[in-house]
Amino acid sequence: MGYFSRVRGLLQFICILLLVSNCHGLLQRRKARRSFKTSVIKSESVRSDLLSQCTLYWRNATLNHFSFVKYKGVDKAFKQRYYVCSNYWKAPTSTSGPGPIFFYAGNEADVLLYLNNTGLMWENAPSQGAMLVFAEHRYYGQSRPFAPWPKSGLKPYQLDYLSTEQAMFDYVELVDEIKKEFRAEQAAVIAFGGSYGGMLAAWMRMKYPHVIDGAIAASAPIWNFFGETPTYDTGSFAQGVTYDASMEAGSSRNCVYNVRAFWSTLSRLAQTPEGCALINQNLNLCPDSTVSSPSDAEAVRDWIADAWDNMAMGNFPYASGYILNGDGQLPPFPIHEACRSMATDVPSDMDLLQGMAGAIGVYYNHSHLTPCFDYKAGVNDETDAVDMLWDFQWCSELFMPSSTDGVNDMFWPAPFDAAAAAADCRASWQVSPRPLHAQREWGGRRIEAASNIVFTNGLLDPWHGGGGLTVPVGA
Amino acid sequence: MGYFSRVRGLLQFICILLLVSNCHGLLQRRKARRSFKTSVIKSESVRSDLLSQCTLYWRNATLNHFSFVKYKGVDKAFKQRYYVCSNYWKAPTSTSGPGPIFFYAGNEADVLLYLNNTGLMWENAPSQGAMLVFAEHRYYGQSRPFAPWPKSGLKPYQLDYLSTEQAMFDYVELVDEIKKEFRAEQAAVIAFGGSYGGMLAAWMRMKYPHVIDGAIAASAPIWNFFGETPTYDTGSFAQGVTYDASMEAGSSRNCVYNVRAFWSTLSRLAQTPEGCALINQNLNLCPDSTVSSPSDAEAVRDWIADAWDNMAMGNFPYASGYILNGDGQLPPFPIHEACRSMATDVPSDMDLLQGMAGAIGVYYNHSHLTPCFDYKAGVNDETDAVDMLWDFQWCSELFMPSSTDGVNDMFWPAPFDAAAAAADCRASWQVSPRPLHAQREWGGRRIEAASNIVFTNGLLDPWHGGGGLTVPVGA
Repeated sequence: MGYFSRVRGLLQFICILLLVSNCHGLLQRRKARRSFKTSVIKSESVRSDLLSQCTLYWRNATLNHFSFVKYKGVDKAFKQRYYVCSNYWKAPTSTSGPGPIFFYAGNEADVLLYLNNTGLMWENAPSQGAMLVFAEHRYYGQSRPFAPWPKSGLKPYQLDYLSTEQAMFDYVELVDEIKKEFRAEQAAVIAFGGSYGGMLAAWMRMKYPHVIDGAIAASAPIWNFFGETPTYDTGSFAQGVTYDASMEAGSSRNCVYNVRAFWSTLSRLAQTPEGCALINQNLNLCPDSTVSSPSDAEAVRDWIADAWDNMAMGNFPYASGYILNGDGQLPPFPIHEACRSMATDVPSDMDLLQGMAGAIGVYYNHSHLTPCFDYKAGVNDETDAVDMLWDFQWCSELFMPSSTDGVNDMFWPAPFDAAAAAADCRASWQVSPRPLHAQREWGGRRIEAASNIVFTNGLLDPWHGGGGLTVPVGA
Repeated sequence: MGYFSRVRGLLQFICILLLVSNCHGLLQRRKARRSFKTSVIKSESVRSDLLSQCTLYWRNATLNHFSFVKYKGVDKAFKQRYYVCSNYWKAPTSTSGPGPIFFYAGNEADVLLYLNNTGLMWENAPSQGAMLVFAEHRYYGQSRPFAPWPKSGLKPYQLDYLSTEQAMFDYVELVDEIKKEFRAEQAAVIAFGGSYGGMLAAWMRMKYPHVIDGAIAASAPIWNFFGETPTYDTGSFAQGVTYDASMEAGSSRNCVYNVRAFWSTLSRLAQTPEGCALINQNLNLCPDSTVSSPSDAEAVRDWIADAWDNMAMGNFPYASGYILNGDGQLPPFPIHEACRSMATDVPSDMDLLQGMAGAIGVYYNHSHLTPCFDYKAGVNDETDAVDMLWDFQWCSELFMPSSTDGVNDMFWPAPFDAAAAAADCRASWQVSPRPLHAQREWGGRRIEAASNIVFTNGLLDPWHGGGGLTVPVGA
């Protein structure tokens, strides 16, 4: 029964390869809201050498797998995109069965991002004779129900089919179709995924073991929910970001201290017009995006914290556009880079402001072409679009609590306020979070009955606090 | 991994106790349609000695567990009924944990039917120190969304939340609530169920092993679906009924032969007015429910086959009202009783008609108070109501094929016509069956990853052909 039966030795192992290849950011929900913009990933970002080994397919996916009644005489469906890369695949012969299917359970982005960044699948395909399948998650990338989407975005009722349950059943049907198409009924199917995709991979093995024979779940914080025993530490994400900015993780001395000092400085300065002017000038804010009140300063604060969160999620040892949804690149160890601007001993207010401008420039000015910062916008359009879709998922099924305390992390004291978050979700999406839903649906730590799931976590990944780091009792 | 790990020795064992106590009829869908009538189980049928040990509860259940968007500002919910019988329960103490929870996963009837007929739970409660919980399935009994229901019945969109998925999540939440209420967080939960309830018990262990520690699934035809390898034998139900009417199973000589002969006789007679008169008189049809055409005769045929199907499902060795939904009683071994009327050697047309009238009277005239038969009505109102609800479930998630061939069974040649059944479902419910849905959702025979499920099947139960009778490869 032990779900770690094959992999006890791997536990606690910092699987850099997986971290690097799979860790797309789950989006923390403590950021200011952004406008919803639809856009497509920049095609320049596609690494054509991998893509050229794959064939693009579209399938008719059922919009609602859990309702059967036809309304107005029309079965609702949408076009779902996926790629099959079968040049390494060992097709079945009269004397031997087929090679396995490595199935990427696409998460909250354009599927090409996973096709181009999931090294583990590509590296193991030749030796295993594996077929690679990269499936796009409904609503993300180009797999869009209700397309074309208006500029104003989708209405809540149109987003109502955006859920893990629905996405997983898309994948169940897709596996079935691929097996028939390639006469691969006997093929073992191994699900791969990172971050939310890793959650999907693990949960698919739990819920559909007749479809998924095993799962590699990288950086999958499946315990990041209410209802766990012991309780999930809601501060663990912020502590992870803080760890990345610490000397232990290779960042500059003073970085954590100065970042923490920055927030109170910002808050204090925003009390007066002179202080606001200092902020606007030294943070290099654009003329139509200035701070003139404490509430403006709070929006700036959240927008800055976003940069740190995202740089931590993308704190890979090499340059990568992964966390930017492929539109641009971050340098190697972006947190190290950012922290170099926050290394001053005994900094003045101005040092802190200018230092922070430099630090977040690693993220918001990754192109080195941004003349000034607009704190009302995200890092790029694709990321904004993903953020909004993820926000809906967070408000509905994936209500993952997070908090900061300013003591164990480098942020400010902000306990998780479930009631306020719920009110916010209702206002945005007409969605009332059900705090215990995820725990009841997915089981949290009580996964003794599951098998053949490998959980990998990198300690530089701030999500590792919600991931499967320990062996449960009885496993 | 073996899901039979604890019970290899039990396989093929005819578990009469379980059969008797749990086998409520899943409804075959080859019957004529009936009008929808709402009614409540007769309270006289309640065995007060068991009920007096239990406490009635109502809970607020979420109508749609898989959608989060609030429409019109209202969260839809309904009152779900359940009973807790805790007089044998070993509550947790400072030195020992709680006794187990035996959880009946209610199926398609009033929950009192299960409370009063699930002997296995009551028999084992004292020695195990178990708490018994009997949960009512949404829409059945008194657990009614959209109540009060109009006499015309519910609209399809109102039935859209009647599904196994939704019902299972009701139970997941209920277990959680009960554990908190009784401080029984550490209690093991064993799901019990018969027939569809057995399917629910088994599937809950598969899908929610963090909630359900083990399952006893009696007479649960979880392989009665499309997509199985090897293919499910759609004729197995009819063969099971036929077996019950055979001498091998204790029925009269000639019964199978004469029942088979009856259908062609009926069909031939219905071609002429004289023949119709013979039918009406000798089958004892009521004046306003006579046969005057071949299509009338087909309706009579289906209505008669229903009686045989139901008597076979209720072919217990003692008198029981179980298959009548508690409204009345069938005699011990009703099929034996019915077959006594069909035992004539070399019968005439009139012998067949009168014999069949006597045979189906065991079911339709179980009260001995029915002056004549109305083939446009079912055996009682409660059964009619259940039939219609089940029909919706059959059309949506649980599209269980069945056929007869008149050779291996005692019926007439009628291959399963999926297209016609689907058209029928669309006309009735605006529902398009998805033939492979159940296999994809529940996994059919590929249940090697499951554990702690005991499948019991009685060979007198006609559903055993779709049940877990063999050990799957790898288990």
